[in-house]
Formats: sequence, structure tokens, C-alpha cells
Amino acid sequence: MTASAKTSAGNFFEDFRFGQEIRHAVPRTVTAGDVALYTALTGSRFALPSSDAFAKALGLPQAPLDDLLVFHIVFGRTVPDISLNAIANLGYAQGSFGAPVYPGDTLSATSTVIGLKENSNRQTGVVYVRSIGRNQRGAMVVDYVRWVLVRKRDPQSPAPTATVPELVAALPGTALDVGGGLDLRHFDPAVTGSPHRWEDYEPGERIDHVDGMTIEESCHMTATRLYQNNARVHFNQHAEKDGRFGRRIVYGGHVISLARALSVNGLGNALKLLAINGGRHTNPSFAGDTIYAWSEVLAKAELDGAPQAGALRLRLVATKNQPAAGFPDKAADGNPDPAVVLDFDYWALLPRRG
Amino acid sequence: MTASAKTSAGNFFEDFRFGQEIRHAVPRTVTAGDVALYTALTGSRFALPSSDAFAKALGLPQAPLDDLLVFHIVFGRTVPDISLNAIANLGYAQGSFGAPVYPGDTLSATSTVIGLKENSNRQTGVVYVRSIGRNQRGAMVVDYVRWVLVRKRDPQSPAPTATVPELVAALPGTALDVGGGLDLRHFDPAVTGSPHRWEDYEPGERIDHVDGMTIEESCHMTATRLYQNNARVHFNQHAEKDGRFGRRIVYGGHVISLARALSVNGLGNALKLLAINGGRHTNPSFAGDTIYAWSEVLAKAELDGAPQAGALRLRLVATKNQPAAGFPDKAADGNPDPAVVLDFDYWALLPRRG
Amino acid sequence: MTASAKTSAGNFFEDFRFGQEIRHAVPRTVTAGDVALYTALTGSRFALPSSDAFAKALGLPQAPLDDLLVFHIVFGRTVPDISLNAIANLGYAQGSFGAPVYPGDTLSATSTVIGLKENSNRQTGVVYVRSIGRNQRGAMVVDYVRWVLVRKRDPQSPAPTATVPELVAALPGTALDVGGGLDLRHFDPAVTGSPHRWEDYEPGERIDHVDGMTIEESCHMTATRLYQNNARVHFNQHAEKDGRFGRRIVYGGHVISLARALSVNGLGNALKLLAINGGRHTNPSFAGDTIYAWSEVLAKAELDGAPQAGALRLRLVATKNQPAAGFPDKAADGNPDPAVVLDFDYWALLPRRG
Repeated sequence: MTASAKTSAGNFFEDFRFGQEIRHAVPRTVTAGDVALYTALTGSRFALPSSDAFAKALGLPQAPLDDLLVFHIVFGRTVPDISLNAIANLGYAQGSFGAPVYPGDTLSATSTVIGLKENSNRQTGVVYVRSIGRNQRGAMVVDYVRWVLVRKRDPQSPAPTATVPELVAALPGTALDVGGGLDLRHFDPAVTGSPHRWEDYEPGERIDHVDGMTIEESCHMTATRLYQNNARVHFNQHAEKDGRFGRRIVYGGHVISLARALSVNGLGNALKLLAINGGRHTNPSFAGDTIYAWSEVLAKAELDGAPQAGALRLRLVATKNQPAAGFPDKAADGNPDPAVVLDFDYWALLPRRG
Repeated sequence: MTASAKTSAGNFFEDFRFGQEIRHAVPRTVTAGDVALYTALTGSRFALPSSDAFAKALGLPQAPLDDLLVFHIVFGRTVPDISLNAIANLGYAQGSFGAPVYPGDTLSATSTVIGLKENSNRQTGVVYVRSIGRNQRGAMVVDYVRWVLVRKRDPQSPAPTATVPELVAALPGTALDVGGGLDLRHFDPAVTGSPHRWEDYEPGERIDHVDGMTIEESCHMTATRLYQNNARVHFNQHAEKDGRFGRRIVYGGHVISLARALSVNGLGNALKLLAINGGRHTNPSFAGDTIYAWSEVLAKAELDGAPQAGALRLRLVATKNQPAAGFPDKAADGNPDPAVVLDFDYWALLPRRG
Repeated sequence: MTASAKTSAGNFFEDFRFGQEIRHAVPRTVTAGDVALYTALTGSRFALPSSDAFAKALGLPQAPLDDLLVFHIVFGRTVPDISLNAIANLGYAQGSFGAPVYPGDTLSATSTVIGLKENSNRQTGVVYVRSIGRNQRGAMVVDYVRWVLVRKRDPQSPAPTATVPELVAALPGTALDVGGGLDLRHFDPAVTGSPHRWEDYEPGERIDHVDGMTIEESCHMTATRLYQNNARVHFNQHAEKDGRFGRRIVYGGHVISLARALSVNGLGNALKLLAINGGRHTNPSFAGDTIYAWSEVLAKAELDGAPQAGALRLRLVATKNQPAAGFPDKAADGNPDPAVVLDFDYWALLPRRG
């Protein structure tokens, strides 16, 4: 009897090379089953992924998948190669969404290593990757940068030349594309239940989304498994009881989805995400935590060639176990309030008054 | 920075007007994903929503959605307008089911305010609404009355003229319609596993459904989110720990579905619901409770033009943490036994011996 | 008022007759919803059920259902007739998979009683059944033997003639059929993410699958309800608190699925199950347990007429709350280690180097 070396231990910091291209395994055909589970696990009430009739009125062939469901499924492809040995998912930037995704599409993912920087303790390093999800026709569905803190296998192994990519703070509004064939001429606010259009929002405005959603172990694990994201910290209580937090950590993307779902109250016409400018999980979330959310309007942009549509740049902040009424944000020292778990900056598409 | 007033706080008692028509937001395209989740969350073994082959043998194009799944999805549309500030869902009446619903159909809902009555404490009032769910062709799929106890925003606001609708105790058997193109000539009891037909049941007969199903937080929240029912009491432990019961309350409709699913043992040929005569949630249910159920045959009716089919009027009683063998019902004072959580009166379709 | 006798109490040992044929109730149309739930509840990353594009490259019309999902759904049909009064599911043997199952197929099940043996205590007996699942065209999709320990209704009832079927320890490799139209000529290991092919495995080799998955009550109950398996011990905490273990027991099939899902790390090219040679649940699992798994290569076989494919006979061992690194197996007395919950022997299909 021999013990096999066939199990993958994932990549460590020294396994990554600047410029390396990675084709991630296990393409995924998305279905109406994934859509139903996403609704059931997040409670999202946004109208576009909910209704074929509404999507057709806006020029699409049927309801597209929620943008964040697409993001999570593409992200799930990348985990075994990028973040199996990650200590933390440090941030996202330069995200944009492309072709709408429909049930029956098959999504696959590739990544390029665009930055590497060993930490001074020599135990860990930061890996920057640009990941692209594509459908079965090769069309880009989501394209984003993330950077993760990854363990070294051997602290003595030599450090690579430090390379940190220049990342833009936000995609400029002029670069946004309503995309996907969406045509808002026949938008009907009775469908979304929200009377507020692009013109009604002003930079500086803050919205308390009021409601809260408590996370259960079963719910966050089921969501994360749905995305085939196999990062160990989410699933194994037997190991995590002796880990950093003594318990399983909620996949940060699940918190993004819960916050976005809560934001329908106040942003019901934020029909879809156009871009992810940045995102940070400022604190971990655990089963038993209740997520609240608030939004701030950061900027507005008109969209070329789409006079019925406009874009809002929004900051979506999620808290745990603290209502968002007081807009919990940064503490006096400039660090995030310990109740803040997510700081997410994105562009959303809204209908204009026309 | 300004705090926004864009969040909906829901309607309070004084926001409703007699005769008011409400078009509810967020139509929903139902799919095979919803069907699978309904099975997985309730354990239902009724044959008609389970098998395309069986549905085709009975003249339908494919398996229709479970009637209660249709009810819950339509109900979910109405919550943001009707019951976001409800203290209690007091009852249902005059429910009937129309066109069968198939995966791919898009359901929307409207309600009419048919009654208003302020309570003597001036803090709350009862709102009666008739809600109608329709498919994308405008055909009625479910039509029912419910009444809810709703908070007033301002106790000093004037009371409306009290109007209480006259509700029939039960749809008469002569008004029932087998509907939806169902033809039971080729009914095969080997498919349902139950030998008992319409002729085998007699008024007064009681059936202990024997089995029990324990509710988990994750299960009831996932079911309720699937229906996009966003009533707050079901989801937010952080707020509910200081609420009336110190914990989240299970959506009453989930209890109806669990009781109906348990009733397959003894009523396996109750193929579908034709009408909901009445329903009351006599006590709240919480995670950790185990639901049992029993049924009583109240009446029988032949169905015009459908000699192979008959209707049973059934009372479905659900209990928590008490087996149904002793048929727990009313206490000596006429009030429901504290173990009883649901008293539900409906007409079901059964095959006749022919 | 009369109490009804319409509820089925299930079959007891003396209700079974040697040679008896049972047609199980409630055929099930499987859908993309079932597939999504199976992924979300097990976290499986095997490529074939995940990707239509990959399935098409291997000659199939679309992604087939996971073999174990097919097994569980067929198994669920048989429970009300075979194992409602079972004390334990003792084992499986002689399992083989036939036609691939696709969303839209309707599965039904029949069983034949192939053995009966009363125990010396006269309280219980062992029932051996051969169960066959078929699709709507009558094609076999899975065919297996299981034996269960069933209570007697009346210990005094006469014992049947003892008949114990002769079961083969394993289907010979020469009897295996790659089946289902699979053609591995265009197999691409970048899709599965595993470089290891049939030639790379040798009998005696052991693989620690490393990862662990903690079971929640909601997860195992949702999976078991998805299969419409209504065995009571899985669902009713109110009754089980006074039962053998003081809590609900996890459906053994869920543990098989978790172990198989974990085994993707090391066996990512074990594309599908060809046969189930045997399986035993050596200890029960409960919510809160973390499942780990390891595999041993028992044998290898070439497949007639499929030069690109080979079969591995694998032993999949699952443990609870003990990592698999030390390959926990049998204790000094030859009995299974108390941490071992599953010992499963199957043939899997792998691509050859060609």
C-alpha cells in the first residue's frame, strides 16, 4: 500500500509567476435551478432576473442571471488555483460585466497573474490576478481583478520581483456600456415597485436599506457549494474549531449578495450591475450574524447612446449585528467600524425619466 | 450627505382605502428550479407535481406546479404592499385555483381592499384584501381573500368607515370546477401508491398522518425567500431577539405546505387543491418545532361534467411537538389547543372508482 | 367521528414474500432544479454533470445527472414499501448503471424480493431486494441489490423459509460497459483539472482526499427530501429525541454523496460510476459531524471496445470527525474503526492516455 501524491494542495505564493495564464477547470452550465437557489438563498427581489416578461419588455430574450450569481460562479472556478491557500481575499477592482448570461449557457474562467509582492515577514505574499469569465461562445461575461494574501510553502524560497499593478479607483462613467441589448424605452416602474429613477438620486445621498438577514451555516454553505467554491474555511467545522476564528467563515461573496438583495428597498430600479470598482471584506462574517446594509451615491453618469438609461456609482456598505440607520462607517482612527463587514463600490444601471 | 427617504416603510392601516386596487411589483417566472426547491423543502410526495408522465396520462401537457407553491409565490408578491407592517395574518377565505401553472409561466398579482375596520384601541386595524394571481396570458391562477392586523402609523389619524366583507364559510361543492383540463379517466392508483378513492371517504372520518417534520431556521427562511416574501419577522434574529417572541417566526404558509406534504399518507389521491375555504394560524411556529398533521373529512361533492372525479372538503389541522394520533383540536374553552398551529379548510380533487 | 385506517404503516418483515414484485409509487421527472440542488448540497465538482459543453465533447447530448443523484431518486421511490420500518440499511451489492439520465426524464422503480431471513430473536428479519430504476422509455438507469433489517409486526408470526441470495463481491471488470454513448477520444484534462489518467493509478494506492464537509440538519434533510425519501428517522427530532440515538440520523446516501464529492481531489478524472460492488454504513452520522474521505485502488480493468477508457475498482472510505490522512480503517479486532462511517466499493470510468 502506498500513499498517493495525486491530491492537489493548491498553489502557494511561490507557485505563481508574473504573467502566468491559468485556465481554470470545470466549466459550468448554469440553469433555472441555479437561479431558483440564488433567489432562495439571498431573497433577492430585483425584477430583471425574476421575470421573463419584464426582460422581454426591455429587449432581452428572457430573464438573465443575476450579475452577482454570474460573478460567484466564475469566482468559484478560480478558487482551486488561486485561493485554496489564501489567508484572506484582500480586494476586488476593475470589474465589468459583459454579455448577459442565460440558463443553458456554459461558463468557464481564465486568470492572468498581474502582480506579486512578498510580505516582509516572508511567510506570505500578495497575488494579483485578472480573471475573465466567458460563455460557450467565448464572449466575456465578467472581467475583474482580485488580490489575495497567500501562504508560502517554504518561507526560505526566494521572493519574486515585486510587481503591483496600477488599478483604477473606478471605471469612468464614460467607459460604461448599458450592454447586453437592454433597451429601457418600455421600462414600467409598476414592475419593479420603485418610483425612483436616475434623476432622483444625488451624489452624497445615503440610503438605509432597513431590513436585516440572519445567516445560517446551512445557508452560506449551500450558496458557496452552489458556486462550486471549495475554499476550506467555509465548510469544515472540525478543522476550523482550531482555526483562526474557531468557526467557519462565511464566503465574502455571500455577504455581497445579501447586501445587494437588501438594497432593493431604496434601489429597486438599480436594474443591474455595470461595473465593480472595488470591494473589501473589512471583517469576517459568521453563522448567526445578521447582515444590514446602506448605500451612498458616489457619482452619476449618462450613458452614451442610451438616453433612457443612466448609471449611478454606489457604495454599498454591509454591517453585522448593527442596523444601518446610523450609517456605520469608519471609526475615529479611519479604520472601518468593527460592525462593518463589506465596503463595495459599483456602477448600477437605472432608468431615466425619459 | 443626506439621508434618503427612498426606502419603503410599507403601508400602515391609514394608507389603505376601501375599494383601492393595488398592482403588486416584481412578476415572477416560475421554473423547474422552484419546483425542485419546493420538493426539497417540504418533502412532498404528491404525484401530480412530481411526474410529467403522470400529468400527461391525465391530459395535461406536463406536471403543473404544486397549488400551494403557486399560492405562496402569489402571496409573496403581495407582502410588500399589504403585510410589511402586519402584526398577524388573521385568516384566509374564498380561495380558488384557476389555470394550472407550468414552468416558464410568469405570475403577477393584484389586490383589492374589500374591508377595513379599526380596532377599539386605535393602535391597529384589520385590512381585508382580495388578491388575484395571474399568468402571463392574464388567466387567473389563484384568487383568495385574506385579512391582516396592521399597525397604524399614527394612532390619532381618523378611522375609516368600518366595512367588513361577507365571506362564505366554504365554496359550495356545486361551484367547484375540476379545471385545468384534468381528465381522470386514465388515473392509475399504482402511480400515487394510494388505493383510496373518493367513494372510500366519509364525512366525519379523521386521518392521523402519523409522520412529523422538524423545522430548521435555514429551511423555513429558504422557503420564504424562494417566494420572495420579505416580511421581516421571518429573517432577522438580531431584531426579533427583542421582539414579541424573542425569535424568528415561521411563515405560516410554510406550515401549510408541511402539513399538506405530511397528508400524503392517507390522502395520497387528493391530487390537487380546488379551493381554500378558510385558514387560520392559531399559534406561531418556530425553528425546532416538529409539525404533525391530521385531517377530517367535512363534506363530499360530485363534480359537474367530470364523472371520474369527486371533491372532498377537508379540514387539515397541524400541531407542533404533539403527535396527531389523539386529534388535538379545541380545548375545553373552545379555543384551539396550544399545540394546534394551523386549522385549514379546503376542497381537494380525488379520482372516483368510475 | 371515526379514526381512519387509510394511513400506510409501511411493510413489516412478515409482509414480504420471496419472489414478490413491487411497483413503487410516485414516478419522478428529474430537472435542472434537482441538478442544481445536488451541487449545492454536496459541493460536487465532477465535470461531467457540471457542463453541457464537456458532455457534448464526449458524445452525449447534454450533461447527464450525477450517477448518485439517480441512485438516490430511485432509492427514494423504494423507501415507503421497503424500508419504512427498517432498523438499518445493511448493505448494497451488484449495482450497475445503465442509460444516462437527463433533465426531463421520468424515473420509476420496481423491486423484487430475492431473499428473506428471520433473525433468531424473532423480532426482526433481513429482507433482500433487487431494485431497478427505469426512465420513461423503460430503459434501466440503475439496478442494485440492498438488504435491510426490518421489524416484525408480530414476533409470533411464522418465519418464512430462509433464503439468502448469492451476491458477487464485485462485478468483474470484463462485464463493465462504458455505456451511455460516452466516447473519450476528445477528453481534455484541462476541463477536469486533473492530470491523472487510468494508467497513473495502481492497485494498493491510497489517496487522502484531504478536505472535510460538516453536515447541518437543514442540509441533510433537504437532500433527503429532494429524493422524496420519507424514512422517518431523518426528519422528526420530536420523536427521535426518545429514539436510539437521541437525534435524527443522516441518510446514509447523503454520506456517500459527500464522500464522492470530496474524492474529486485526487480522482477528478473518475468521470462516472459504472458499478456499485458493495457498500456498508458502518456507523451512523449526525448533524455536526464532519465527513472526510479516502480511497484505495482495488483493481483495474480495460474496457472492451473503448480503447480510450479504463475502469478502476475503488474503495471509498468515509470517516467522521477524523481526517483521512492516516487512512482510518479497521480496528485491531477487525471491526471498523468507530470513526469510519462508510465503506463503499465501486467501479469508476477514467480516460486512458490513449
